[in-house]
Amino acid sequence: MQNPKLSILGCFSASPKANAHPTAQLLEMKGHLFLIDCGEGTQIRIRKHKAKFSRINHIFISHLHGDHFFGLIGLISTFGLMNRSQDLHVYGPKGIQEIIQLQLKLSKSYTSYQLHFHELESTSPEVIFEDDKISVETIPLTHRVYTNGFLFKEKKGQRKLDFEAAKKHRVSHQYFNLAKQGNDVVNLDGNSVENSEITNEPDPVKSYAFCSDTLFQPDIVEQIKGVNLLYHESTFLEEHEDLCYKTKHSTAKQAGIIAQKANVKHLVLGHFSVRYKNLERFKIEAEEVFSNVSLAETGKDFEIE
Amino acid sequence: MQNPKLSILGCFSASPKANAHPTAQLLEMKGHLFLIDCGEGTQIRIRKHKAKFSRINHIFISHLHGDHFFGLIGLISTFGLMNRSQDLHVYGPKGIQEIIQLQLKLSKSYTSYQLHFHELESTSPEVIFEDDKISVETIPLTHRVYTNGFLFKEKKGQRKLDFEAAKKHRVSHQYFNLAKQGNDVVNLDGNSVENSEITNEPDPVKSYAFCSDTLFQPDIVEQIKGVNLLYHESTFLEEHEDLCYKTKHSTAKQAGIIAQKANVKHLVLGHFSVRYKNLERFKIEAEEVFSNVSLAETGKDFEIE
Repeated sequence: MQNPKLSILGCFSASPKANAHPTAQLLEMKGHLFLIDCGEGTQIRIRKHKAKFSRINHIFISHLHGDHFFGLIGLISTFGLMNRSQDLHVYGPKGIQEIIQLQLKLSKSYTSYQLHFHELESTSPEVIFEDDKISVETIPLTHRVYTNGFLFKEKKGQRKLDFEAAKKHRVSHQYFNLAKQGNDVVNLDGNSVENSEITNEPDPVKSYAFCSDTLFQPDIVEQIKGVNLLYHESTFLEEHEDLCYKTKHSTAKQAGIIAQKANVKHLVLGHFSVRYKNLERFKIEAEEVFSNVSLAETGKDFEIE
Repeated sequence: MQNPKLSILGCFSASPKANAHPTAQLLEMKGHLFLIDCGEGTQIRIRKHKAKFSRINHIFISHLHGDHFFGLIGLISTFGLMNRSQDLHVYGPKGIQEIIQLQLKLSKSYTSYQLHFHELESTSPEVIFEDDKISVETIPLTHRVYTNGFLFKEKKGQRKLDFEAAKKHRVSHQYFNLAKQGNDVVNLDGNSVENSEITNEPDPVKSYAFCSDTLFQPDIVEQIKGVNLLYHESTFLEEHEDLCYKTKHSTAKQAGIIAQKANVKHLVLGHFSVRYKNLERFKIEAEEVFSNVSLAETGKDFEIE
């Protein structure tokens, strides 16, 4: 079983700078490669990360501030220049379709592929993507404009067959699938074999919660309880906590409190204001309340375990 | 007198890559700092070039293809984040205002400064900016969408006073301005002094023509005749001339023919397709018909002399 992997393409707030790229992340999970947010220049970051453009079929946009979506139109255009053929799905706030389609229309650049928009308006969590292996749901956040975080969850797989035990209990391979589904089976001698005798627990499911941008909002704790990895914005340090209320952002310590209350396994901080020279201070402030803290960094991968 | 200076911020066509930035140029002329086109990532290029954001008050957009304007919304937003106060003027094809204002509206990011749009629709050359020192006019081009090049021209200044000659001819300093304006004057002895005795020709005027993107279009020759510097797109080499007709672009040799026919002083080639490894070939092909050819290069300055 391969663990999911989060790759940071950019983790700074506001204007892009040569060494401070705006928010964009790639999440590799159960064969999917999801793009989360897409600030200006994201397509260059994807190339630098040597990720395959053609593997990106779903893009999730948290909100319509430039540092989270100004790179989307460029990426959509580049997909067209690459003669992409497979469908692309974009999930984001209402209005995102109008922005993209207006630009495509005025540049007479119709895409070579089907572009599907899934516009979001709900202020309650909703499942916006689902297949047999994973689901993605919105995490409604509180920011200056309509904003969602996203919760990516693996689904529980089948039980693991213990081949040696199955052989020992004289279970025919015709019954293996039934056993993996959790059923007791009948062996070659006509005797019933309990499921637990020949199977083990399925792989534990992994989950990732992306929460940016938001005011400190403890009511998300219930939804993200126990996730393996939480990315939470921390635009400011405590010395600028007053700015959080004005701009609807969080401090590193507030992110730590969310992580602690939700009992997550690992917290990654990001969306740093470019005013700070020493990012280590974010880690130190969050660690006052939560122990397993990392700092997002352009080009860095986090295995979700 | 300071010569105008052209700075190349990006000179490649299509999708931005780490080392192939899309079209953007800065033109320093008579105290103005004009931005010409604004592909994705241009704001980072401006920073790298150490140009002052606050000096840019006029932005000229040739056409609404992404590699020429996807960076505009980001730059306009960044000006806002910097609390810019002075007016900003954007000149570009009809539709540009709707694109920018829709994104500002949906992100609830109203600018801290006055943003003026000058939407272009005419297919004949028109003066779109003018002050006492320079004028800017459109150069209608032929591309897949409505496109203009831009012709930047200094205005002829006053005649230069020869102080020694004026002293010798006993001309009072009260008459100096009249003399600079080209008039004969009366000296301290009541005698008339011919203007040419005490003044010299004004500084020669400089001009710059920006022509991107366009099919080979010899009817622009008349308008750009004798310019000091011509930037002309050369997306393709001769081996791909057939693609020019399909995509409405030019070859390096065609750019050379325009330069030769217009008798310009210096030709700079750009808007290279990223398919070519060796850009020297563009220079070689243009030099078959015109001798003073340079290649655009990110970060490079060209003095206009």
